[in-house]
Amino acid sequence: MPASDAGTLRPWSAVAPLLVDVAMGRRPADLVVRNGRWVNVHSGEVIPGTDIAIVAGRFAYCGPDASHAIGEKTKVVDARGRYLVPGLCDAHMHVESGMVTVTEFCRAVIPHGTTSMFIDPHEIANVLGLAGVRLMHDEAAAQPINVYVQMPSCVPSAPGLENAGARLGAEEVAQAMGWENIIGLGEVMNFPGVAANDPVMVGEIAATVDAGKTVGGHYASPDLGRAFHGYVAGGPQDDHEGTRVEDAIARVRQGMKAMLRLGSAWYDVASQIKAVTEEGLDPRNFILCTDDSHSGTLVGEGHMDRVVRHAIAQGLKPVTAIQMATLNTAEHFKLERELGSIAPGRRADFLVVSDLASLVIDEVYARGVRLARDGRLEADIPAYDYPASAKKTVRLGKRLKAGDFDIPAPKGARSVRVRVIGVIENQAPTRALSAELPVAGGVVAMDRRNDVCQIALVERHRGTGAVTNGFVSGFGYTQDCAMASTVAHDSHHMIVVGTNKEDMAKAANRLGEVGGGVVMISRGRELALVEMPIAGLMSDERAEVVAAKAARLAAAMREMGCTLNNAYMQHSLLALVVIPELRISDVGLIDVTRFRKVDLFLPS
Amino acid sequence: MPASDAGTLRPWSAVAPLLVDVAMGRRPADLVVRNGRWVNVHSGEVIPGTDIAIVAGRFAYCGPDASHAIGEKTKVVDARGRYLVPGLCDAHMHVESGMVTVTEFCRAVIPHGTTSMFIDPHEIANVLGLAGVRLMHDEAAAQPINVYVQMPSCVPSAPGLENAGARLGAEEVAQAMGWENIIGLGEVMNFPGVAANDPVMVGEIAATVDAGKTVGGHYASPDLGRAFHGYVAGGPQDDHEGTRVEDAIARVRQGMKAMLRLGSAWYDVASQIKAVTEEGLDPRNFILCTDDSHSGTLVGEGHMDRVVRHAIAQGLKPVTAIQMATLNTAEHFKLERELGSIAPGRRADFLVVSDLASLVIDEVYARGVRLARDGRLEADIPAYDYPASAKKTVRLGKRLKAGDFDIPAPKGARSVRVRVIGVIENQAPTRALSAELPVAGGVVAMDRRNDVCQIALVERHRGTGAVTNGFVSGFGYTQDCAMASTVAHDSHHMIVVGTNKEDMAKAANRLGEVGGGVVMISRGRELALVEMPIAGLMSDERAEVVAAKAARLAAAMREMGCTLNNAYMQHSLLALVVIPELRISDVGLIDVTRFRKVDLFLPS
Repeated sequence: MPASDAGTLRPWSAVAPLLVDVAMGRRPADLVVRNGRWVNVHSGEVIPGTDIAIVAGRFAYCGPDASHAIGEKTKVVDARGRYLVPGLCDAHMHVESGMVTVTEFCRAVIPHGTTSMFIDPHEIANVLGLAGVRLMHDEAAAQPINVYVQMPSCVPSAPGLENAGARLGAEEVAQAMGWENIIGLGEVMNFPGVAANDPVMVGEIAATVDAGKTVGGHYASPDLGRAFHGYVAGGPQDDHEGTRVEDAIARVRQGMKAMLRLGSAWYDVASQIKAVTEEGLDPRNFILCTDDSHSGTLVGEGHMDRVVRHAIAQGLKPVTAIQMATLNTAEHFKLERELGSIAPGRRADFLVVSDLASLVIDEVYARGVRLARDGRLEADIPAYDYPASAKKTVRLGKRLKAGDFDIPAPKGARSVRVRVIGVIENQAPTRALSAELPVAGGVVAMDRRNDVCQIALVERHRGTGAVTNGFVSGFGYTQDCAMASTVAHDSHHMIVVGTNKEDMAKAANRLGEVGGGVVMISRGRELALVEMPIAGLMSDERAEVVAAKAARLAAAMREMGCTLNNAYMQHSLLALVVIPELRISDVGLIDVTRFRKVDLFLPS
Repeated sequence: MPASDAGTLRPWSAVAPLLVDVAMGRRPADLVVRNGRWVNVHSGEVIPGTDIAIVAGRFAYCGPDASHAIGEKTKVVDARGRYLVPGLCDAHMHVESGMVTVTEFCRAVIPHGTTSMFIDPHEIANVLGLAGVRLMHDEAAAQPINVYVQMPSCVPSAPGLENAGARLGAEEVAQAMGWENIIGLGEVMNFPGVAANDPVMVGEIAATVDAGKTVGGHYASPDLGRAFHGYVAGGPQDDHEGTRVEDAIARVRQGMKAMLRLGSAWYDVASQIKAVTEEGLDPRNFILCTDDSHSGTLVGEGHMDRVVRHAIAQGLKPVTAIQMATLNTAEHFKLERELGSIAPGRRADFLVVSDLASLVIDEVYARGVRLARDGRLEADIPAYDYPASAKKTVRLGKRLKAGDFDIPAPKGARSVRVRVIGVIENQAPTRALSAELPVAGGVVAMDRRNDVCQIALVERHRGTGAVTNGFVSGFGYTQDCAMASTVAHDSHHMIVVGTNKEDMAKAANRLGEVGGGVVMISRGRELALVEMPIAGLMSDERAEVVAAKAARLAAAMREMGCTLNNAYMQHSLLALVVIPELRISDVGLIDVTRFRKVDLFLPS
């Protein structure tokens, strides 16, 4: 079966008689791997001297001797005593964080041993709504590995405080639950809404449970009191927002799965895994995931292999860490018959590993086909063709000019006191700062010396031409420049941050031309550009190319004086009107401690 | 909620907002239990100082302080530091083995802490077919505890070698999968059929898997070679037929659940649990069950509490043993959101236990209602009304006479050599023996001195009046007597064993009068009778009454000279034409090593 046919994997019940025939020696296997060390995630053992026989993309026989399954056309591989490990699963992640398509994400992570991903296309949903989810759903289904989709639950993230490109509710969730590749509901981020019985949240969760699917959680609060218990009672079945050991313990005790996250910027495994290694909790309810991985991480460090290695390094037995990235995940999503272990009937997704503790992955097989070897992709995975409608999503409605970024001062004022969004290095929350700024020609001026520059939220979904202007501090830009991004969580309008309004206009217009992405302009010159024409969120280029462009962008930011760690991420989060304290949206400046719009100007 | 309303338990999604309101303190709970030790099967911990709040029959809050959930009408119970244990689950069992109805079985086992049962109404299916399954399904759904039904898979057990009262196949299985209370396919006993891709087995398993339900296994062979692997590849997901530690290990490695059985006559836990206690296998894939419990066991020794106590006595940590009778079972049947743990959203099925290691159950709650206390049932569970069609199933077609049991000798013979079914004490298999018997008046005579008496299979489903006669050895009857039973696995015709043909006729006719059951007649006198009018398999009386009648029957067998242990069970298994070596059916004498009919007479 060539990899390109993998999408046609037949249901178990259609091929079961073939599996039986191979196990009984009445029919030759497609592939037999001999003499492996079977990492058995069911029993928790490593069993030497194991043969496995595969037919129709599924395991038919796993045991001491598969010679009876070898026929003339059977491909036979000698594992030479190496470990046979189930393909790794990423239990919760956003492909868009890699700035690449699902296909390209797969190309990047397959050599790292990932053969199953549970993706939440929350970002594209905010731009293109249900149609966007469907596009990624269909692309996911076309992959040679298992890519299941979690239906985004909170679009927009903050109704009333922003207008995203779309709005999804219980009706859309119920509809999507009928799609073949939808595995459940994506992280229910509106945790106050769940505890308050918000009808949209109640309806979405009910539709998911009634469809027999899994409700993903996202409880981003350290409060383990009543609010937490209210959230749990509302039905979410997992959570990846815990950061402390007590978070993991609390979730598991309540019957949730503790999803421990190691993303490009999330480091939540080491602290929480102590619930197992030190507190002795049953490991079966712990699951590993990445949530968000940048292209650079995928190219340079890895994906789930990185997470498993890290978990082993924290003191877990290798087989226990592997369970957390295979069987535990499969069981959580009710897929234990299909994937997550090397056992008869399951899809033949497995890794040939030469060292278990350091997880050295020599070969990667999915559905019985070798897709990668020695870290290099071997499979030919064709690019997925996104329709034009998905590529023309940056609608500015006009050509922006420097004047669009002018902030008129109250009449007659010579200086004003304004609210300023204060970026905090390495943290998602912002500070609500203020600054006294001069007025020149009736317009409020920036204060580069004190690191106060402008931020603009440019409406880009409906072409209204609207620009919301404000101030931001913390990037440290010392040069004339502007950076614009259409990745602007979660509404994904366009965020422009700049010290120079001409550059701001040029940056915004440039993204309008290329259909979105990120660009840095300085004195009219384009220093860096990462085009992301798909919904303004994803490149259609290769991960290596995107990673290189992203690296150039980071360098350009540094050249302009920005010394902030992960500066691009900070930029893209400034419209995230669900995390305190001060944010910007198309509605205006938002106080996210009180969840309301506030005025730019403060009393002097 | 009174227990009698328990059948109306609403789906989770219909009551989720109530659960949230209670957890948040916006609405009072129906019941709050304070100061318990939470036996947490998710984390594997015992957590002191726990309160639980219940509304609408489900847990709404489990944590350190539920005072906010207490209102004026909330019932408050002080657990006084006792253990709160999830209600116990019996993962595979046949109600018919108790000779009582589902309702009566529940009445008997609820005081022992059983709050979920997974029943396989295989016996009634052999008598009444799909209609019989539906009757028990509907009775199951009416209980105040959770009784799920596994659709019987092998009716008849041995097509071609017997004619049962009904025949079920893939079409019936597919139909039943749509019934609310059907949880999966019952033990697939035709293991050679699975490994041979028998189309009925393939079709039934496919229909179950395609419905997303669980396929029960039954691999009753010590062969762990190719035949075992072929069976596994065919799809069964659990097995309770293992007896040795290597059986349990083999099943778990293959991704099956090892169901460890402690029934009235099955003792398969102690040997197999060593896979966990000595070999260190992950306990998550081990599940406890009873399979078959007689009324006497239920009344005198218990049910799943007995199994859990026994498992703890084998060296398991109490919480691990409890997991094997709660969470592990729930997960196996994809019910982990509904039952199997004390956690928000689940049905409020729990036990108040004063000693964990010896599992002293003080109180039993199901769906938030206390059903039993100090071993006594408190709930009023009304008897279930079986229709007349289920009660008139013993159709003999005629009044039997002693002459119906005459075995004519070949013309002119003065003695003959005949096959004799040899009963082996405490084992299900029989021996194929032979004996030289005298002929008197052209009829073969019995040989009481050498313990050779007669056995007859009386057709009772279609009223054909047919009687299959043969010989049996091993019961040791020394008196004139006959015992008849309409419990005659699996076809459930009538088996009559006797030393006296007048008594045989009388016993058979007596069961025809009472609609089935078991009777012992000696010289025309009725020594014992257990009436089982429902399908000839179940009494409509109380378990205590049935147990007492069964005890009288056992005593009568002993009076007649039978010293065999579990003699009634041996009697009822003599038509089980799937277990070697020699059996009797309506087709004739069956050699179950070669699966074919054989002649009664051997060459002299």
